[in-house]
Amino acid sequence: MNILYDERIDGALPDTDKDVLIKHLHQHIPGLDLLWREEELKAYECDGLSAYRTTPMLVALPRRLDQVQQLLQICHAQQVPVVARGAGTGLSGGALPLEKGLLLVMARFNNILHIDPAARTARVQPGVRNLAISQAAAPFGLYYAPDPSSQIACSIGGNVAENAGGVHCLKYGLTVHNLLKLEVLTIEGEHLTLGSDALDSPGFDLLALFTGSEGLLGIITEVTVKLLPKPQVAKVLLASFDSVEKAGRAVADIIAVGVIPAGLEMMDNLAICAAEDFIHAGYPMDAEAILLCELDGVEADVHDDCQRVREVMQQAGASDVRLARDEAERVRFWAGRKNAFPAIGRLSPDYYCMDGTIPRRELPGVLRDITRLAAEHGLRVANVFHAGDGNMHPLILFDANQPGELQRAESLGGQILELCVKVGGSITGEHGVGREKINQMCAQFNSDELTLFHSLKSAFDPQGLLNPGKNIPTLHRCAEFGAMHIHAGQLPFPELERF
Amino acid sequence: MNILYDERIDGALPDTDKDVLIKHLHQHIPGLDLLWREEELKAYECDGLSAYRTTPMLVALPRRLDQVQQLLQICHAQQVPVVARGAGTGLSGGALPLEKGLLLVMARFNNILHIDPAARTARVQPGVRNLAISQAAAPFGLYYAPDPSSQIACSIGGNVAENAGGVHCLKYGLTVHNLLKLEVLTIEGEHLTLGSDALDSPGFDLLALFTGSEGLLGIITEVTVKLLPKPQVAKVLLASFDSVEKAGRAVADIIAVGVIPAGLEMMDNLAICAAEDFIHAGYPMDAEAILLCELDGVEADVHDDCQRVREVMQQAGASDVRLARDEAERVRFWAGRKNAFPAIGRLSPDYYCMDGTIPRRELPGVLRDITRLAAEHGLRVANVFHAGDGNMHPLILFDANQPGELQRAESLGGQILELCVKVGGSITGEHGVGREKINQMCAQFNSDELTLFHSLKSAFDPQGLLNPGKNIPTLHRCAEFGAMHIHAGQLPFPELERF
Repeated sequence: MNILYDERIDGALPDTDKDVLIKHLHQHIPGLDLLWREEELKAYECDGLSAYRTTPMLVALPRRLDQVQQLLQICHAQQVPVVARGAGTGLSGGALPLEKGLLLVMARFNNILHIDPAARTARVQPGVRNLAISQAAAPFGLYYAPDPSSQIACSIGGNVAENAGGVHCLKYGLTVHNLLKLEVLTIEGEHLTLGSDALDSPGFDLLALFTGSEGLLGIITEVTVKLLPKPQVAKVLLASFDSVEKAGRAVADIIAVGVIPAGLEMMDNLAICAAEDFIHAGYPMDAEAILLCELDGVEADVHDDCQRVREVMQQAGASDVRLARDEAERVRFWAGRKNAFPAIGRLSPDYYCMDGTIPRRELPGVLRDITRLAAEHGLRVANVFHAGDGNMHPLILFDANQPGELQRAESLGGQILELCVKVGGSITGEHGVGREKINQMCAQFNSDELTLFHSLKSAFDPQGLLNPGKNIPTLHRCAEFGAMHIHAGQLPFPELERF
Repeated sequence: MNILYDERIDGALPDTDKDVLIKHLHQHIPGLDLLWREEELKAYECDGLSAYRTTPMLVALPRRLDQVQQLLQICHAQQVPVVARGAGTGLSGGALPLEKGLLLVMARFNNILHIDPAARTARVQPGVRNLAISQAAAPFGLYYAPDPSSQIACSIGGNVAENAGGVHCLKYGLTVHNLLKLEVLTIEGEHLTLGSDALDSPGFDLLALFTGSEGLLGIITEVTVKLLPKPQVAKVLLASFDSVEKAGRAVADIIAVGVIPAGLEMMDNLAICAAEDFIHAGYPMDAEAILLCELDGVEADVHDDCQRVREVMQQAGASDVRLARDEAERVRFWAGRKNAFPAIGRLSPDYYCMDGTIPRRELPGVLRDITRLAAEHGLRVANVFHAGDGNMHPLILFDANQPGELQRAESLGGQILELCVKVGGSITGEHGVGREKINQMCAQFNSDELTLFHSLKSAFDPQGLLNPGKNIPTLHRCAEFGAMHIHAGQLPFPELERF
């Protein structure tokens, strides 16, 4: 979307003689698969955020650890930027390649190394798919809890890089809460172990620092995750409301009575209708909002919780509350939610999926403000989100072929994220910052905080060779962004003036 | 204990003209309470690790944020090292003062700023006591989960600095898992907000990096913690075993069947007898080991779990399993455990409390090795620990007045911690590294990893003014430690040779 930015980042990078680099890599790393022809590179020009595209200079597909290590050493010596990529399902452009950089694809590291049922851990390579871990753990009655919608395809290395979430993070936490240990390589090819197999690790918490660092600090080569016992029972309640505010209130009330649902999701009318047309999940198309609330645990406990949640929903003004009759209906209720994004994709030539978080109490007010902002921009917005977490996913519908619509969608998206920051939330819940939200980082953090981020980055990667131009904006960039906003008369926060 | 080390750290620091500094602080920070007379300083010469003592140059007791900010700016300008202190209950000497440094006591920042029952959060000043948070939250049916044994006295700022744990961390996590947001000041007096009120925060995870950083990165000025709903019911099972190995196996088996106890604690015979003599908790003095297992949640769930845990304990060879009849007996069972340290203190003039973690499966083997090492050193060791977490607290009994016993106790302690590292664990579970375990950090981390820690420290505090000589050893120190060990013929890990 933001072509200007791509050009500038790449423009600032040193030129590399591509042929010399290829020769060098072939010579020193026998058996390393490299792609460099235009038609081969095409498949790697974007990740899940397809609006941003760049053709990489070179793609490497190593199979062995020593290949990755040597490749990093060579790129470090020759000052070639390296962008890591897992399955390429990320939604913020974190794996967007660089014209003057090497794209390091870790997809072939796809072995499950060890499942330890007693310790309840799985040690896996970074290219292993999220769902494959749960499948491998299933014979032991265990599973890996974080479940992004892309879990069938996304890789655990990418999950760590983006600190991925999912429907069940309300109860079970984000990726960072389900990790024990990482093996990583620095840009210089040094091997580091972060975390340990035990409860805690002394020194600074590098495991948490690395999680969600979006490929800026090093390359993940092995991941040890925690596994959880599969709950005995899971039940889903579907509640219908005649206003999104009432549904928002019900969310706060459910949490307030002390129930912790496994998942608590909200959809508004546009999302409900799109999903129902597409999946026939059994959603009430006349409802202004629905809540899906999953409760899991032992039988008696789940039964009690269902009763309590039903009462709270009714008191909050639900016009109807249905318990999924059986497992088939439960799966159907979730299928509607999990396919909501493609369903909305059928309504509009393009859509732009946002990912902001807000304190739960701000839900009704923020939903109202989004409706107002959407009307001002002349665009439709569908809301589908992890309501229990306060993790919103407004989907902005637009048509890139209509002059000005793309710009209006970008402007609306930016304003929604800044609204999240204003009420005490953040510009990303689970999709990461990547390339997409680099401007909004200037609204989220002040210049002292950004300077600190750059110092930390330098501790791992002094030359800035790992994934430059993602996650952490330069102060210069924030100054430009701030100035732009003032110029357009839309400055959201007076603090921006200081840049 | 290690006087040599204190001298060296202080020796390397620049001399400050104390009178000039006092005058400067008084002049620029009206109303700031300063202590500088020998007799006033006495109370601050150690924290909970009383074997290490140093008289600070100066103690400051600010009441307001602007005083802390100005004090830091002055110390930064004059290159005076600053050691922060909360309630001074830490067990690893993290708040041990420096002869040439200022001790910054944050105890007067003891206001609870806001309890938000809907968001289930508490915003407090750093000097607020751990238990005071739960007391303030109680009217809303909420509490703060991490519960170090010192919870009646220790402050939340210190809990964050050491990433404190407690009996209930098995189910509810360490301090880092129960935090939302920190307000901190850097050594330059810059204000930073780490984390947010919402689910996740973009950029690097500075909240986790800061937690457990032991005062090396900045001064905590405000803490927002998560609160949890109080469980409906809590029950405790007390199981007796005729060997510690059987008790160790029961721990692994309980976790393996998928129950997550609120607490799962083990005590060996020496600890059982000491506690029983002191508290009359009703423990079986003929047992080689006991397990205390607390289960909490809703009534029906807890009832089912008690049944399952009882069966697992019996199958693992428990000779007796008793359910606390009523709340009074439950409290008595815990009182024995919570007072085990002072109880053991009655057996011996001195004791040295270790704090290592190991993977749960290694419990039986490590307990055997500790018994062997203790015999080799001619010392007694009592074991009291968070078994479910694999977080061990071997207590080494000794008499500092007997020539050589202190050195033997230190040597045994070091070897136990190195044993923890060898089986894949770590040298601290919840007490921190501080001054006490700085040598063992050389066994835990390699020189690349330590270099990285120093780079991260520099990003926050380039001059190294905050709590120098704690947590992260210099490479030079590790070289000396390694050499020392080779000389004594006790080199535990060949990797140490590389220093």
